[in-house]
Amino acid sequence: MRLALIGAGRIGKVHAQTIDRSPDVTLAAVSDFHADAAETLAHQYGTRAIEAEAIFEDDDIDAVLIASSTPTHADYLERAARTGKAVLCEKPIALDLARTTEALRVLEAHPVTCALGFNRRHDPQFAGLKQAVADGRIGDLETLTIISRDPAPPPAEYVSASGGLFRDMMIHDFDMARWLLDEPIVQVQAHGSCLIDPAIGEAGDVDTAMVTLATASGRLCHISNSRRACYGYDQRIEAFGSAGMLQAQNETETRLRFTGEPGQVEDKPKWFFLERYAQAYSNEIDDFVAAWKEQRPPLAGAHDGLEALRLAEAAQRSLQERRPVALDEIR
Amino acid sequence: MRLALIGAGRIGKVHAQTIDRSPDVTLAAVSDFHADAAETLAHQYGTRAIEAEAIFEDDDIDAVLIASSTPTHADYLERAARTGKAVLCEKPIALDLARTTEALRVLEAHPVTCALGFNRRHDPQFAGLKQAVADGRIGDLETLTIISRDPAPPPAEYVSASGGLFRDMMIHDFDMARWLLDEPIVQVQAHGSCLIDPAIGEAGDVDTAMVTLATASGRLCHISNSRRACYGYDQRIEAFGSAGMLQAQNETETRLRFTGEPGQVEDKPKWFFLERYAQAYSNEIDDFVAAWKEQRPPLAGAHDGLEALRLAEAAQRSLQERRPVALDEIR
Amino acid sequence: MRLALIGAGRIGKVHAQTIDRSPDVTLAAVSDFHADAAETLAHQYGTRAIEAEAIFEDDDIDAVLIASSTPTHADYLERAARTGKAVLCEKPIALDLARTTEALRVLEAHPVTCALGFNRRHDPQFAGLKQAVADGRIGDLETLTIISRDPAPPPAEYVSASGGLFRDMMIHDFDMARWLLDEPIVQVQAHGSCLIDPAIGEAGDVDTAMVTLATASGRLCHISNSRRACYGYDQRIEAFGSAGMLQAQNETETRLRFTGEPGQVEDKPKWFFLERYAQAYSNEIDDFVAAWKEQRPPLAGAHDGLEALRLAEAAQRSLQERRPVALDEIR
Amino acid sequence: MRLALIGAGRIGKVHAQTIDRSPDVTLAAVSDFHADAAETLAHQYGTRAIEAEAIFEDDDIDAVLIASSTPTHADYLERAARTGKAVLCEKPIALDLARTTEALRVLEAHPVTCALGFNRRHDPQFAGLKQAVADGRIGDLETLTIISRDPAPPPAEYVSASGGLFRDMMIHDFDMARWLLDEPIVQVQAHGSCLIDPAIGEAGDVDTAMVTLATASGRLCHISNSRRACYGYDQRIEAFGSAGMLQAQNETETRLRFTGEPGQVEDKPKWFFLERYAQAYSNEIDDFVAAWKEQRPPLAGAHDGLEALRLAEAAQRSLQERRPVALDEIR
Repeated sequence: MRLALIGAGRIGKVHAQTIDRSPDVTLAAVSDFHADAAETLAHQYGTRAIEAEAIFEDDDIDAVLIASSTPTHADYLERAARTGKAVLCEKPIALDLARTTEALRVLEAHPVTCALGFNRRHDPQFAGLKQAVADGRIGDLETLTIISRDPAPPPAEYVSASGGLFRDMMIHDFDMARWLLDEPIVQVQAHGSCLIDPAIGEAGDVDTAMVTLATASGRLCHISNSRRACYGYDQRIEAFGSAGMLQAQNETETRLRFTGEPGQVEDKPKWFFLERYAQAYSNEIDDFVAAWKEQRPPLAGAHDGLEALRLAEAAQRSLQERRPVALDEIR
Repeated sequence: MRLALIGAGRIGKVHAQTIDRSPDVTLAAVSDFHADAAETLAHQYGTRAIEAEAIFEDDDIDAVLIASSTPTHADYLERAARTGKAVLCEKPIALDLARTTEALRVLEAHPVTCALGFNRRHDPQFAGLKQAVADGRIGDLETLTIISRDPAPPPAEYVSASGGLFRDMMIHDFDMARWLLDEPIVQVQAHGSCLIDPAIGEAGDVDTAMVTLATASGRLCHISNSRRACYGYDQRIEAFGSAGMLQAQNETETRLRFTGEPGQVEDKPKWFFLERYAQAYSNEIDDFVAAWKEQRPPLAGAHDGLEALRLAEAAQRSLQERRPVALDEIR
Repeated sequence: MRLALIGAGRIGKVHAQTIDRSPDVTLAAVSDFHADAAETLAHQYGTRAIEAEAIFEDDDIDAVLIASSTPTHADYLERAARTGKAVLCEKPIALDLARTTEALRVLEAHPVTCALGFNRRHDPQFAGLKQAVADGRIGDLETLTIISRDPAPPPAEYVSASGGLFRDMMIHDFDMARWLLDEPIVQVQAHGSCLIDPAIGEAGDVDTAMVTLATASGRLCHISNSRRACYGYDQRIEAFGSAGMLQAQNETETRLRFTGEPGQVEDKPKWFFLERYAQAYSNEIDDFVAAWKEQRPPLAGAHDGLEALRLAEAAQRSLQERRPVALDEIR
Repeated sequence: MRLALIGAGRIGKVHAQTIDRSPDVTLAAVSDFHADAAETLAHQYGTRAIEAEAIFEDDDIDAVLIASSTPTHADYLERAARTGKAVLCEKPIALDLARTTEALRVLEAHPVTCALGFNRRHDPQFAGLKQAVADGRIGDLETLTIISRDPAPPPAEYVSASGGLFRDMMIHDFDMARWLLDEPIVQVQAHGSCLIDPAIGEAGDVDTAMVTLATASGRLCHISNSRRACYGYDQRIEAFGSAGMLQAQNETETRLRFTGEPGQVEDKPKWFFLERYAQAYSNEIDDFVAAWKEQRPPLAGAHDGLEALRLAEAAQRSLQERRPVALDEIR
């Protein structure tokens, strides 16, 4: 697969490195709003920097990876679909439902392989948990507990542009919940507080949140988010069922244990998402290429982006109106 | 302390054994609705069986431990207060707020040392967590996650008489939440399902529940209950704050680890509450005796029973009316 | 069982407390070389202090627990046997083989229930490991790794009187090895250093030692001892076999885990042997009483004391002569 | 660095893949005794297959990685030195001391960057442990415990050609011991049994072994090897000192934990050395290139190969002569 990368920022660089190591993908071109960022990255991986527009006109390019800023996602996605290129788009497609739905319609009219960057589905821990649940290891799934905490809060100005905690951060957990619960979620109840940085509160957002989801059959799911876990990137899921419990525990850098003062000490959880999800990013590319080759849907697609966004919208409304929100209300 | 035990059932027997091992308490008498149960237990520990009424008339008896059936608690409690005897009362005082409040008024008029059987406050794990939080180990407490699951569901007929999951089972978690959050809880939101035993649903109760509590300053607390954890008695608390996280993990019978098929295997959590909380029951008696001697309040008192019941009432209303309930509504 | 305790020191007090809690044993008398120590302990547990000699003349006394100083053990043991009293003797019977063998001959001539204080056989961790090995959990046992470290070294003067590390400290591990290997040990190789306290070296002993044992069929066992583990009482055993591995890990006071600086921190191992082996001491008394009632041998008997001492003698000789010593050489 | 690979077998393939991913090394050529194996591997990584001899005549080649069969190592090593090429040689240089010493003399006369494939020094677990010990985390190092078990025994015919367990398998542990003890080892005592495969015994080797090393200052080191750990590749090191203990625990594929029947279950240790040491192989290449660039010695060099072999020789002699062997005896 000859793939062009749009976006040479932090996440774009991660993808460039992953692609460079993959025997199945060639990095055909790099594009960025900042031309010199594209140049630098292209040079590093021995490819060329071009205008985004040129990508869509190049018949030698099979696929596009959209890692540019959020407001550009939907446009590029539609452009890729219309020019028949496979597309791997970083989440979210857009910050509002209307624009997201529009993009999905274009995809419907111009069907291409379209993967959405819900990287956690590709994480070995969570994929292993999903598989074990699917294999019936815990019998009937009854409750799900998702704890997801960032190591440090973003600047308040980022918060304003991001769409808020539910659309920007918890959206990953909503996707995990949908994927693992494996049946329609019908109700969302959100609680939130600003306990870490008052500037986040002034920007109209929360930095600490708990959400409860309920499915049609009565399964319950708890999601807990914090913008600041001083000990690192806290990423855990617990699935509880009639025949047992599965827990995806945090990863650590080493398995060293020190015993002495102040006790039995092991590593803190990995600090940064790029480090924690390195394998997931690699698996994500592999899945995208395989889906394109085999003409099958990728593990996470555009529709999953829409549905996770609906849950975020419902959470936002629940928080504002201080009541449980039926998912049906969100269209 | 010369103590009389009212109730020779399961929990009464636990207390009798604990008292027998305590150098500070003498089991002065045993009473039970079933006279022969009282006789048997009294004989086992070398004491006498008497009528409950006789206890309150006996000036040589310093204290009463009420472990009889729930509907009798409030009466015996009042009787103890009026006859000037210290009292350790199993939870709950009563299943409704009115009766509980009435009993508290009697206690106010006739002040005696009155401890309530919230045994988990005396558990070394949870007491250690409480102490570490109080010592500032995790900085400012932000969120609390309480997971509490019984090994096996009770018969549906028990459920009807018990007051339901919130008043009977989650009441312990409400007390833990109050104790650890250490500031007024202002809002309660409950979710519940019947996933384990349809008979429980037919009896009007849930067997799986998630509750979110919020305090005045914005601290959030999640409580998850299930009536059936096939692997044992699952009792965990996680306190998260600005400077770290504390987790009280499950206890196991041994620290043996087997490595082979099917992996690295350690013991399941302890199965039964008597085994899991053996030390807590012992510490509870010690605290009761010490409180009586030192004329100080015990670690958990009648007021704590009332407040935990208010949270249970709020949860019940929240579940029925499908909305967050302000604790102010519950009087 | 009416039992008399000889020795009101540290270990005597532990036994007194355990006996006091046991419904099956009555502490009939306490004796000590220091009469007032005996008085104090007797008073504490509501019994009488008497001369040791009087114990053996008292027909109402069924059993004797010998917890006096080591040089007196063999005499009291023989006295008990000759007067037909069951006896639980702290290890060792004597510090030399000749005296030990002599005591065993008296026991042969005057058979009474005789238990030796190898408390670790009664520890739930090690007993669980033994049971699992016996159940075939790890297939054929191939190697055994015993790590045993004290929290702090004894004063050098103690070392001289104790018979040295092999006879005083590693003797417990030799017993564990014999019990778990479950076939004749044929060869002993010892290595030792003085790394902790030079005074121990000056007293002619080592404070750090490694011993390798080999059985007739080729099973190998490694024992590692240190007189000082700054983090507590380190007591671990690993049994490795054709179908897996079993590890008895250290016990900790709680199961609390803190995550933050400096990492994920759990309790240090329990510090003191009395705390670590509290349950073992209790089980030991139970086994002694049961053996006496059922007229069966206790879990550890006088013969086990002799055989562990032979291993210690072999280790001592191996260390001095810097060569492997065949157990046959030690008689 | 333009590097040629000699040996296209299992370990050669691992190195080829690692080199392919490294931005600092170009795989310039592949050579193998079996020309088609070289062709296949060369083709896979877009390079050419050539005769080994041609490598040493090619001035464009900077370095050679020797991953051919053991008997060819020393010859190729000398050839590389004489032609001024940096060399990374798989262990061992040779199976006997004489040939190894000879090769070292050639290296002395023709100094080139020469790294030896003791991959474990590059493992993040063991490197982390080494660093922590060097940082004084455990105070003065007193004892070292190395447990190293292969998942499955090799065929008996392999055993004959390999030089035996001490030279082939424990050689890695001898290197770890030298590296971590960080002072001269003066004495070696070996014990061995054939417990797994009688054919190994018939071939004159053992499959289960324990070795004790002592250093000049009295530090003790225990090494335990087994050719068959049914649960995977068991690779652990415990360093014990005056201020604490450090343990490098086994790595597992995931951090998933299942709780239910038969207990709390986590993954078995990783099964295969390529998987367990993937990161180590990658770090090894990085260190080799950096050493070559910076003209500094690599983390493990030819001298380390010689010294580890001397320990293996001492162990072999100790086993045969059933006595401790002073390292001075081995020249």
